[in-house]
Amino acid sequence: MVRVKLIGAGGYGGIGLVELMLRHPEARLVTLVDVEGVGKRLSDQWPYLRGHCDKVIVAPDSAEALGSDADVTFCATPDGVGQTSAPVEVAAGRRVVDYSGDYRFDSVELYAEYARRIHRDPVHRAPELLGESVYGLTELHRTEIAKARVVGNPGCFAVSCIVGFAPAVEHGLVELEGLVCDCKTGVSGGGKKPTAGFHFPERYDNSNAYRLTGHQHVMEIERELGRIAGSTIRVTMTPQVVPMVRGILSTLYGRLPSGVTQAQVLATYRDTYANEPFLHVRDYTESVGTSDVRGSNRAIVTVACDDRTGIFRVISHIDNLVKGQAGSAMQNMNVMFGLPEALGLDQSPQHP
Amino acid sequence: MVRVKLIGAGGYGGIGLVELMLRHPEARLVTLVDVEGVGKRLSDQWPYLRGHCDKVIVAPDSAEALGSDADVTFCATPDGVGQTSAPVEVAAGRRVVDYSGDYRFDSVELYAEYARRIHRDPVHRAPELLGESVYGLTELHRTEIAKARVVGNPGCFAVSCIVGFAPAVEHGLVELEGLVCDCKTGVSGGGKKPTAGFHFPERYDNSNAYRLTGHQHVMEIERELGRIAGSTIRVTMTPQVVPMVRGILSTLYGRLPSGVTQAQVLATYRDTYANEPFLHVRDYTESVGTSDVRGSNRAIVTVACDDRTGIFRVISHIDNLVKGQAGSAMQNMNVMFGLPEALGLDQSPQHP
Amino acid sequence: MVRVKLIGAGGYGGIGLVELMLRHPEARLVTLVDVEGVGKRLSDQWPYLRGHCDKVIVAPDSAEALGSDADVTFCATPDGVGQTSAPVEVAAGRRVVDYSGDYRFDSVELYAEYARRIHRDPVHRAPELLGESVYGLTELHRTEIAKARVVGNPGCFAVSCIVGFAPAVEHGLVELEGLVCDCKTGVSGGGKKPTAGFHFPERYDNSNAYRLTGHQHVMEIERELGRIAGSTIRVTMTPQVVPMVRGILSTLYGRLPSGVTQAQVLATYRDTYANEPFLHVRDYTESVGTSDVRGSNRAIVTVACDDRTGIFRVISHIDNLVKGQAGSAMQNMNVMFGLPEALGLDQSPQHP
Amino acid sequence: MVRVKLIGAGGYGGIGLVELMLRHPEARLVTLVDVEGVGKRLSDQWPYLRGHCDKVIVAPDSAEALGSDADVTFCATPDGVGQTSAPVEVAAGRRVVDYSGDYRFDSVELYAEYARRIHRDPVHRAPELLGESVYGLTELHRTEIAKARVVGNPGCFAVSCIVGFAPAVEHGLVELEGLVCDCKTGVSGGGKKPTAGFHFPERYDNSNAYRLTGHQHVMEIERELGRIAGSTIRVTMTPQVVPMVRGILSTLYGRLPSGVTQAQVLATYRDTYANEPFLHVRDYTESVGTSDVRGSNRAIVTVACDDRTGIFRVISHIDNLVKGQAGSAMQNMNVMFGLPEALGLDQSPQHP
Repeated sequence: MVRVKLIGAGGYGGIGLVELMLRHPEARLVTLVDVEGVGKRLSDQWPYLRGHCDKVIVAPDSAEALGSDADVTFCATPDGVGQTSAPVEVAAGRRVVDYSGDYRFDSVELYAEYARRIHRDPVHRAPELLGESVYGLTELHRTEIAKARVVGNPGCFAVSCIVGFAPAVEHGLVELEGLVCDCKTGVSGGGKKPTAGFHFPERYDNSNAYRLTGHQHVMEIERELGRIAGSTIRVTMTPQVVPMVRGILSTLYGRLPSGVTQAQVLATYRDTYANEPFLHVRDYTESVGTSDVRGSNRAIVTVACDDRTGIFRVISHIDNLVKGQAGSAMQNMNVMFGLPEALGLDQSPQHP
Repeated sequence: MVRVKLIGAGGYGGIGLVELMLRHPEARLVTLVDVEGVGKRLSDQWPYLRGHCDKVIVAPDSAEALGSDADVTFCATPDGVGQTSAPVEVAAGRRVVDYSGDYRFDSVELYAEYARRIHRDPVHRAPELLGESVYGLTELHRTEIAKARVVGNPGCFAVSCIVGFAPAVEHGLVELEGLVCDCKTGVSGGGKKPTAGFHFPERYDNSNAYRLTGHQHVMEIERELGRIAGSTIRVTMTPQVVPMVRGILSTLYGRLPSGVTQAQVLATYRDTYANEPFLHVRDYTESVGTSDVRGSNRAIVTVACDDRTGIFRVISHIDNLVKGQAGSAMQNMNVMFGLPEALGLDQSPQHP
Repeated sequence: MVRVKLIGAGGYGGIGLVELMLRHPEARLVTLVDVEGVGKRLSDQWPYLRGHCDKVIVAPDSAEALGSDADVTFCATPDGVGQTSAPVEVAAGRRVVDYSGDYRFDSVELYAEYARRIHRDPVHRAPELLGESVYGLTELHRTEIAKARVVGNPGCFAVSCIVGFAPAVEHGLVELEGLVCDCKTGVSGGGKKPTAGFHFPERYDNSNAYRLTGHQHVMEIERELGRIAGSTIRVTMTPQVVPMVRGILSTLYGRLPSGVTQAQVLATYRDTYANEPFLHVRDYTESVGTSDVRGSNRAIVTVACDDRTGIFRVISHIDNLVKGQAGSAMQNMNVMFGLPEALGLDQSPQHP
Repeated sequence: MVRVKLIGAGGYGGIGLVELMLRHPEARLVTLVDVEGVGKRLSDQWPYLRGHCDKVIVAPDSAEALGSDADVTFCATPDGVGQTSAPVEVAAGRRVVDYSGDYRFDSVELYAEYARRIHRDPVHRAPELLGESVYGLTELHRTEIAKARVVGNPGCFAVSCIVGFAPAVEHGLVELEGLVCDCKTGVSGGGKKPTAGFHFPERYDNSNAYRLTGHQHVMEIERELGRIAGSTIRVTMTPQVVPMVRGILSTLYGRLPSGVTQAQVLATYRDTYANEPFLHVRDYTESVGTSDVRGSNRAIVTVACDDRTGIFRVISHIDNLVKGQAGSAMQNMNVMFGLPEALGLDQSPQHP
């Protein structure tokens, strides 16, 4: 039984993990930490959890939090928090999965560039952990994740784009120059904090692009794809919000190398992901929507290259709160603790 | 006073035109035609129009329809209907604005290719009108529209993509090869007929791409951009539906020619559209959403090229039912009858 | 030409009035006041208004605001603001329409009770105006509104309930004891300020009752119905929010006096409202939804008594932002300045 | 292990049960029957179920269907189907839970009245089963359900209203005359078949009442409450649709008998439902929405009587597809087969 400590229990990333942990046969929530709602039950803040998770929230620096007998700590916290928390957790013998960008980069230089993009202090406060931390896109880093003390869980957009481009980049099925990620996300990606742009009347019949000067997730995408390609890759990413709650639809474009066809790309994707429990490949004649992965840890990758124009095109569908966040985090925990990778993650969602 | 006959009054394209005509100071609806609701008032079918438009619907082949004293006929009808209607209207001395693809192409060959894409009979039934019909994207064809007897109103996706790419293509600010249109539409674009994919429970938290083998609007885009460029252009288009009702967000990609920058593209767009009442240019630092054009005949074009990656990017926002349909149609009527182009179209929408 | 000053221009109540004023042939916005966005154009805050209303916002105590040459001032402001503003406006010769509860009651005692319900200071700061202020439900108080210096625009829920119950109360068609108002509102009624309950992910598939200990609008309903009845009336009101943006659906219940039937109630409602441009009566066999009044100043009242059980039932539909707020306000202005009551208010909305 | 046959597998009621059965540790789907999609996997129709339920659908009269080795058959079918199916199932030794109104009434006379309300043949085709069939509101009929061969699963509105009124009726806390059920439902209650009223553009910002001449569920409510009261009860019910997908919010009204207070009603409800795993009672100071029960088998009953006006008021919240349908059905199965009542039903939903 893996004992779990969760920091940031009350956000969407936190309750998403709680929901999954409650279904996990080999894991148990032992400590819930947050800065809001301390001393109250998580279910006081989220009444739908009454009877399901009535554990009391403790403060980050409380004796209960610091002395937790957990085996693993999830930092479901914003950028910057994990830099302080993770060293403490590691020192206490707890392995760490951090949701933010704090441990997605293995050098202080890369982190500094990332931090500048999100207008944060570029000096990482736990540089000693950067070298050993592992990027938590499970399908690409299983072996290292299994041994890692600190895992940097990937960004939601990044998950959708990397699983969409990786086989093509690996097998030379797309020109490496001029890659484009056109990403549409549901608004839960912005978290539970009310903002003007996510106020119901402003959002209900509205779609928009944002952060056009460069979303920070582009760095993960470039780093991972570049690693696979063995060369520097630059990606243009367009983050967009559409009036749904759960789901990311990323449409990925590039140029087909001379002679490469849709049929070939499709065959390679099917081969590459044949044994992946959560990565599903579809042909473009099959109808797919984000609702097909809603509530699920799956990514569906539709291969839809345009032989007429020579454009490489793949469409990637995930639930931003599951495969894009809590699901990936739990998948990583399974790998870290030698459990079957899909344990607790293979249940059918509810529809509609 | 321009007298107006409207065929297909009861669809979204029809009532959209009715709403606009009711505000138009120099136009008057004289004949409403449809195959549904004949003998009843339009407001029986659409109660929100009671007291606003209680005119009775007549059948297409009724004496009232055929003998209408209208000056102009709008065919707010599906593909194929205008091929039969327009010759009759023209013979009766009525100029025609057709919403469908029937008169968007000036040759039987092009039409045949279009028809095949939408699985219709490739033989046009009014080939004699194709030669003289004019493509109704007002900003690009004002002079011909002013004299036209038959105008082929543009497709909603096409409007958004063409106004987004045209200045770049004209001024050599984008490589002509590898153009991509990533288009997201609200569901009203699919019309009023209930379908499984637009059933509320299946749509409310769902986004999807469709018709990946080639949406028919791509032909208009290629033809218009090719005409401007003076060469053949091929475009990859990805139609996608997101859970909103009104609005199209088209994100357009290409490659920046060597040395071309965001600043230069922005300046050229601002110049090109400086005197256009309905085409508004924005820099990518400005926040724009489809709700900024909801209910309006405007297109907002955000110039957002990525100098870092050399990717040309423009984001085009329209209301698919106004600038993408009824608004463009009325704008064309204004031009055809020598009225100020913005007459009846310059009113503020309601928000939220 | 009526010259208009608007305090609180940037809220939903403010822009709703701006939209309507822009269409009004005999009124003109001359001064826009707000505490946010001072020195900027209203269209900077609300880009959909660019080119429609680019007037600069001035501060409440600026020379432009205080020295405005307006004939009428609308206080589209929260409870309490009008108590300070209205005396100043009146002293400057400007008649006032206030959106809040500040002038809905004609005695300091009633106001004090109202204020306590919304947890505000029960001492009214402009008691001298209470005596002369008029309750702005136009259909019930036309004569006094025509002469009023200060009009207290009614609450949105109150509009729907009072027009729904008034004819029955007047004509003895419902027992006066045990009246119930089951009210469902769209979320725009809560204004533009983001809150946890109106955050898109928390609201999109959620309906809830709130303020069950007593919504303040109940006082207006009881006062107006009591005035009509000539006796004290107590009403139970259940405010509820459903995931739509515009619209109120109020289902009103009571007991049918012995011998009173649906047919009789329907006939009386039809008679009573026969000449009202904005009050429409329907039988319960007719299908009605809030979308039938969306964007319109109309109220549709469906008479649906249950002869089998002896229950009086009427269903009232309005757009909370139009007939429930800005539309009523402009209707009152028309009456105050001797203009046709429907001027600027009789345009067809857009659908869908 | 209970073996389950499901007729009507492809509707919302069918897939809702499939989702629950997949989680049930002591039940197994053995036969899926439908008239659509025969010979295909359920997951071909519902791709989100791929890998979760790939069982092939068989025709109702196929050998696989008729010879199923199931212990229990769920008829997730429209009114009328169960009349033909249930006798066959019972004869084959399979106990039956029917979703429709076919077995909710124990006499042919009552059924005939029900059938007339929904414009169906009033002659029941399996009258011999009516006498022994049990009404499947588990909390009220556990003992009979445990032994029943045929259970008539309750209507979704009826569940919400009956659990909301039952303790008051039983303990004399509400006057029996003049009961009102003001019911708001999400649109999934209408099933998966696309209709004009549930077309996304017509529904997204629209609420409406319907079937005002009398919804058929009123009969169940009257019968059950009358049974508890030991006298005839008449109820006025107002069915309304709001733009959400899952959820029913029923606001229930009556008159408080002299001397009965909110405090007393609340205490009685808490007592009555103290040991019910799925019936939760709340005071009106607690904030509750339908999202608190979304995806759950719970009903939350908020007691909110108005001592000031003497009005009894209770607000009942359920998920129409779970406690209102498939969840209740599985709860009944648990009781029928001697399993713990909450087995497979006590999992936390996902939010948001």
